[in-house]
Amino acid sequence: MTPLPAPRVRMGMVGGGEGAFIGKVHRLASALDGEIELVCGAFSRDADNNQRTGALCGLASARIYPDWQALLEGERRLPDEERMEMLVIATPNHLHVPIAEEALQAGFHVMSEKPAALSLAEARRLSHTLNASGRLYGLAHTYLGYPMVWQAREMVRNGQLGTLRKIHVEYPQGWLGDALETQGNKQAAWRTDPALAGASGCMADIGTHAFGLAEFISGHTISELCAVLGTHAEGRRLDDDGDVLFRTAQGASGTLMASQVCTGEENALKIRLYGDQGGLEWHQMEPSSLIHRGLHAPLRILRAGIDQPELSEAARQRLRLPGGHPEGYLEALANLYRDFAAGIRRSDSGQAAGVPGMTEGLHGMAFIETVIASQHSERKWTPLPAID
Amino acid sequence: MTPLPAPRVRMGMVGGGEGAFIGKVHRLASALDGEIELVCGAFSRDADNNQRTGALCGLASARIYPDWQALLEGERRLPDEERMEMLVIATPNHLHVPIAEEALQAGFHVMSEKPAALSLAEARRLSHTLNASGRLYGLAHTYLGYPMVWQAREMVRNGQLGTLRKIHVEYPQGWLGDALETQGNKQAAWRTDPALAGASGCMADIGTHAFGLAEFISGHTISELCAVLGTHAEGRRLDDDGDVLFRTAQGASGTLMASQVCTGEENALKIRLYGDQGGLEWHQMEPSSLIHRGLHAPLRILRAGIDQPELSEAARQRLRLPGGHPEGYLEALANLYRDFAAGIRRSDSGQAAGVPGMTEGLHGMAFIETVIASQHSERKWTPLPAID
Amino acid sequence: MTPLPAPRVRMGMVGGGEGAFIGKVHRLASALDGEIELVCGAFSRDADNNQRTGALCGLASARIYPDWQALLEGERRLPDEERMEMLVIATPNHLHVPIAEEALQAGFHVMSEKPAALSLAEARRLSHTLNASGRLYGLAHTYLGYPMVWQAREMVRNGQLGTLRKIHVEYPQGWLGDALETQGNKQAAWRTDPALAGASGCMADIGTHAFGLAEFISGHTISELCAVLGTHAEGRRLDDDGDVLFRTAQGASGTLMASQVCTGEENALKIRLYGDQGGLEWHQMEPSSLIHRGLHAPLRILRAGIDQPELSEAARQRLRLPGGHPEGYLEALANLYRDFAAGIRRSDSGQAAGVPGMTEGLHGMAFIETVIASQHSERKWTPLPAID
Amino acid sequence: MTPLPAPRVRMGMVGGGEGAFIGKVHRLASALDGEIELVCGAFSRDADNNQRTGALCGLASARIYPDWQALLEGERRLPDEERMEMLVIATPNHLHVPIAEEALQAGFHVMSEKPAALSLAEARRLSHTLNASGRLYGLAHTYLGYPMVWQAREMVRNGQLGTLRKIHVEYPQGWLGDALETQGNKQAAWRTDPALAGASGCMADIGTHAFGLAEFISGHTISELCAVLGTHAEGRRLDDDGDVLFRTAQGASGTLMASQVCTGEENALKIRLYGDQGGLEWHQMEPSSLIHRGLHAPLRILRAGIDQPELSEAARQRLRLPGGHPEGYLEALANLYRDFAAGIRRSDSGQAAGVPGMTEGLHGMAFIETVIASQHSERKWTPLPAID
Repeated sequence: MTPLPAPRVRMGMVGGGEGAFIGKVHRLASALDGEIELVCGAFSRDADNNQRTGALCGLASARIYPDWQALLEGERRLPDEERMEMLVIATPNHLHVPIAEEALQAGFHVMSEKPAALSLAEARRLSHTLNASGRLYGLAHTYLGYPMVWQAREMVRNGQLGTLRKIHVEYPQGWLGDALETQGNKQAAWRTDPALAGASGCMADIGTHAFGLAEFISGHTISELCAVLGTHAEGRRLDDDGDVLFRTAQGASGTLMASQVCTGEENALKIRLYGDQGGLEWHQMEPSSLIHRGLHAPLRILRAGIDQPELSEAARQRLRLPGGHPEGYLEALANLYRDFAAGIRRSDSGQAAGVPGMTEGLHGMAFIETVIASQHSERKWTPLPAID
Repeated sequence: MTPLPAPRVRMGMVGGGEGAFIGKVHRLASALDGEIELVCGAFSRDADNNQRTGALCGLASARIYPDWQALLEGERRLPDEERMEMLVIATPNHLHVPIAEEALQAGFHVMSEKPAALSLAEARRLSHTLNASGRLYGLAHTYLGYPMVWQAREMVRNGQLGTLRKIHVEYPQGWLGDALETQGNKQAAWRTDPALAGASGCMADIGTHAFGLAEFISGHTISELCAVLGTHAEGRRLDDDGDVLFRTAQGASGTLMASQVCTGEENALKIRLYGDQGGLEWHQMEPSSLIHRGLHAPLRILRAGIDQPELSEAARQRLRLPGGHPEGYLEALANLYRDFAAGIRRSDSGQAAGVPGMTEGLHGMAFIETVIASQHSERKWTPLPAID
Repeated sequence: MTPLPAPRVRMGMVGGGEGAFIGKVHRLASALDGEIELVCGAFSRDADNNQRTGALCGLASARIYPDWQALLEGERRLPDEERMEMLVIATPNHLHVPIAEEALQAGFHVMSEKPAALSLAEARRLSHTLNASGRLYGLAHTYLGYPMVWQAREMVRNGQLGTLRKIHVEYPQGWLGDALETQGNKQAAWRTDPALAGASGCMADIGTHAFGLAEFISGHTISELCAVLGTHAEGRRLDDDGDVLFRTAQGASGTLMASQVCTGEENALKIRLYGDQGGLEWHQMEPSSLIHRGLHAPLRILRAGIDQPELSEAARQRLRLPGGHPEGYLEALANLYRDFAAGIRRSDSGQAAGVPGMTEGLHGMAFIETVIASQHSERKWTPLPAID
Repeated sequence: MTPLPAPRVRMGMVGGGEGAFIGKVHRLASALDGEIELVCGAFSRDADNNQRTGALCGLASARIYPDWQALLEGERRLPDEERMEMLVIATPNHLHVPIAEEALQAGFHVMSEKPAALSLAEARRLSHTLNASGRLYGLAHTYLGYPMVWQAREMVRNGQLGTLRKIHVEYPQGWLGDALETQGNKQAAWRTDPALAGASGCMADIGTHAFGLAEFISGHTISELCAVLGTHAEGRRLDDDGDVLFRTAQGASGTLMASQVCTGEENALKIRLYGDQGGLEWHQMEPSSLIHRGLHAPLRILRAGIDQPELSEAARQRLRLPGGHPEGYLEALANLYRDFAAGIRRSDSGQAAGVPGMTEGLHGMAFIETVIASQHSERKWTPLPAID
């Protein structure tokens, strides 16, 4: 009855050299469940860093490539049973689409850091490439891998909140309170550089997470919004903060706040949803708890754990440990990788079940562009373009 | 050195008969510190309720009046040393100004429930009456009586947050999730009736608290806003929910949410302020804690208590107990009464030090009117009228 | 149907002059509900302080007595309708019984600070005096006035926890971490002086609160214990800390910790009870919440509020405000005073319903003596003497 | 400068077949950092389960052995570069020492689940075997791998708490509230069977964690204790609960509570330490926070994160993510594995730096035996045997 063990999925990585936080995160998370193996990489334009990172990952030097083009070329020539199957893109934003397109066209599945693209138009082009390729595309919306996020979504779907009225999502961080980009912080530098990050800073980086979380749990589509963006550090060129009012096509309204200048805040993504029958509240920094408020009942705290009887199957499948044994961010991302590997094994195409992909990518880009349009508009409401 | 004991200030009350939550609250809070004595009242149009409430308060029947006109008339005729000195107005909103005006003109100090008036114009008229009267006017913005709110304000003033960038204030309640007004709930009935409550429901009732708290702690003036109001229960005639973006004249921006349809929420007023040097967070439901985030320092929790060395004098003066002995809502309102009584004893006029009054009333009415104007506007920003 | 308003109960006070935290607390709490009036006092041996305190309380100078003997004598001579009815004893411990005995014998009801006496023998003597007097005796176990403590007790009584197995109560404070008694702190001085405080410091002061809370909520009687006391500050003469194992006559076991040297702790009284069907947890510093754990159900948080449908009548009667409007320590003590006044009006004798009294006093003294005996014993278990 | 990448350490596993929670945990945690590779196993006496588990782990069938004897024999015959280097023991307790001894004698390093042995005598024997072997021995005290536990330890060492006075550690669980062992729960069955678990149930299973945590953070040695054990479910043969008073050789005192019948509790390991200069508090279920109380300063919350400047090097080395990205239980265990692998690469013997080992094993066994002795003693104090 137990499925036969499958060989590990072979993965390559572009970007994520030493010093880039997110590359290591992808390596740890993809390794956690033992279903994916890193076989090659082009980690950094700095040859030294590239070699060092590859060596630390235990890669043969032949599989450490000087750049992503060489990687695609080199892997394409390898025999089927050695060749990488999926490529993780962990570069600054401007390279996401160029690499993804070539990788898909070369027959590789792609797991990309977000945002999917620099513009909605670019994302649409990528979407067509994806459809033509018959391959899988995943987007690292890590927070959509958290078990209690799935639990919340199931409860909304099951009607436990009744008709949704309000959605409030916020994502305060404080790390860009200073002009870090002028102080030698590499991540701050590229994230505030329009050429590398795109037309938005904070909203593209974390606003999209908040947006994606709201749409994912609620099942609603945000249809119009009113945004105010801010830029606070001296000389900064992109938004580091924004407040948004929104309405959904299904009739709810709410607010979205994303900021990187909330001094002292770490990574405090939080969502609340209220329906006419109940409310839910989830904090990413205490991800094992889901607060459930009823109409005429005391507040309950649902807790993560494979042994928690009240959890949905969707939540339980994404847990590894019993109640009271905290799982966190890496486990959430590992859930996306596990589902992506399962999609590869099933020979799915387009989007792997359980993994955010092109749909979320297109919505996210539409969000970013609409936020920017709204920021420059004097009208209260700016509609989001339809994504088909 | 200790000030000589003063006789208690003699207080009358209009409204607040049995069954009206807020009347009892005012009686308890004004009595707490033993500086004010209830001497007369016109508590209810229901003669029975009026008598019963007066009797329970230990009033002589001659001082239980059938209506507020009779009360003002009766008290005016009493000798100086018996006559009430201040009048508390705890009626539905539409009577606030009519009673206040006559009371002030008759020489009585007035402590009014909020909102100050039904419109900004009415509030301005009242302001002129007040100025002409030489009497004191207080507004029961209870939350401005909390010690840790004063502590927050002091810390902002002292520059501990640096330049303020963001202000986020929210006030979710859930009690109007159902159409309670059709189910015999008296408070729900008048609060959703435009003739008694005014042009706004939720925003006038609790939005003004959130607004007042934000301006009080920050010291900023909200200068323009963008509001979206909602009405959710079947047949309801006033807003029961609203989300607001705002900017201050001093350069900060932020959000204000007030709702009475956040199912399961009790009275969760909360504020966060972020400056370039630090951030503060305060929750009304855990009022003894003030969370302080620094730029490069661990989060600290300042705690209420007369023995807490790091508290400002302004906070400490509003506390009665040492750390770990919780004080709450009644104590906060009692602080306003104590300061109002002190103002009477000092023969102050206009506004008593430490007590919200006409300034807050005018600002609050400007806020309500601007929120409603914005709700009907297609423009993003609606400026608040200047209050001089 | 509403009971006729009764005249206020006339109260006197011994001790509690300016600078003594607890005297003011009793005055505030007894005044809160408007059912008790302070009419006389002997607040301090310092004539100046005594006069000043009395004057601040608005007392006529004839009712400010130089000492408690004069107070009893003076009041006895007054006509019935003027004479104080009840006396609050807020002196250091060694005077509790002498004053209480004379007051009871003179026909006055007594509300005493705890501990009831300096020894169990003294408490037993007082108990006989009380029985002979036909008067009421109350003990200021403030924490037993908290609404959610009553809610917890009701839930245990109703079997919602099943058979109780474990009780864990703790009371960490930190204020005696230093040798404050040598630094001019008056309260620290008498609380660490055996002549004034009795044979125990920390255990008599706060250990008895923890003990009383455990017996009150559980309905169990602690029958044997094993105690280890500590004294940490240089030169201190009484315990400032203690850890206790205990068993109850009804078959539960548990721990009691009370300490005044837990650096940085404020007043963190907390209790947890576990039965075979559920568990409860209550924290004095967040008194409006009661955590309820079920056997196979998510944790629930019951919340204080007159509008909370799931609360027991016993809890609701002790609340003044709806959910989300915090009530605290003063309101808890006010509940004891309100019930004591009701007992006086009903002409009860011995113990007023809802108010801790001689029963709790005798148990508390038995606890203190047993703790001290156990501290000097090499045997694991020391039984508590039976109280009949 | 960066160390050359080392080949992965080759690991075998005994026990931990499908259905055994802890086996999977060890596999996940050891894989996380990519420094250890599972190469062989004898996972279950059930041949089917054994094959299935091995296959799921991707093992060649030649490396899936029918039992641990066969595993040791088989691996010994393999060439150096293929042969497993370390063996994880994840069996019921009674097999820990037999397997460990043979593995060490065969030249393999051993990572064992706790407790180290069934008795102190058995542990001492194992200690001699270890010393003779020149190999490494690690004990899976997972909680000692948490970064904020190391942070706490560093702060104690650096004197930030001053002289330690009190240590309070508790470990409430609720999963054995019912007689699960009679309902087909395998883990409950062996953990309550003296032949498989040893002389203690709860104290051996989780009491040792609490004990180990207290000694680790404090740096103190618990020298005498007073224990009361309980057994609550019908027919259960081992303790499921215990309360302990203790004293340390360095002069602190405290309490230890461990229970598996605290209904509704998950895995709520918690420790508090108080010194004359400050206090610390850590909760395993919110492991990223460390609460620091100062003598005359507001409470601070230190937070986990590689970017948190105030953390010690020891804490930071055990983190993978920046602040606000939760790490949990698996990451804590992974830290032990990473340090164990580093010890192997350095050719350390005895105990690997950063990994609990024989020292903790001997102390833990002494604790268990002393707790049982104390349970049967009528004396208050029972000394722990000296471990040299």
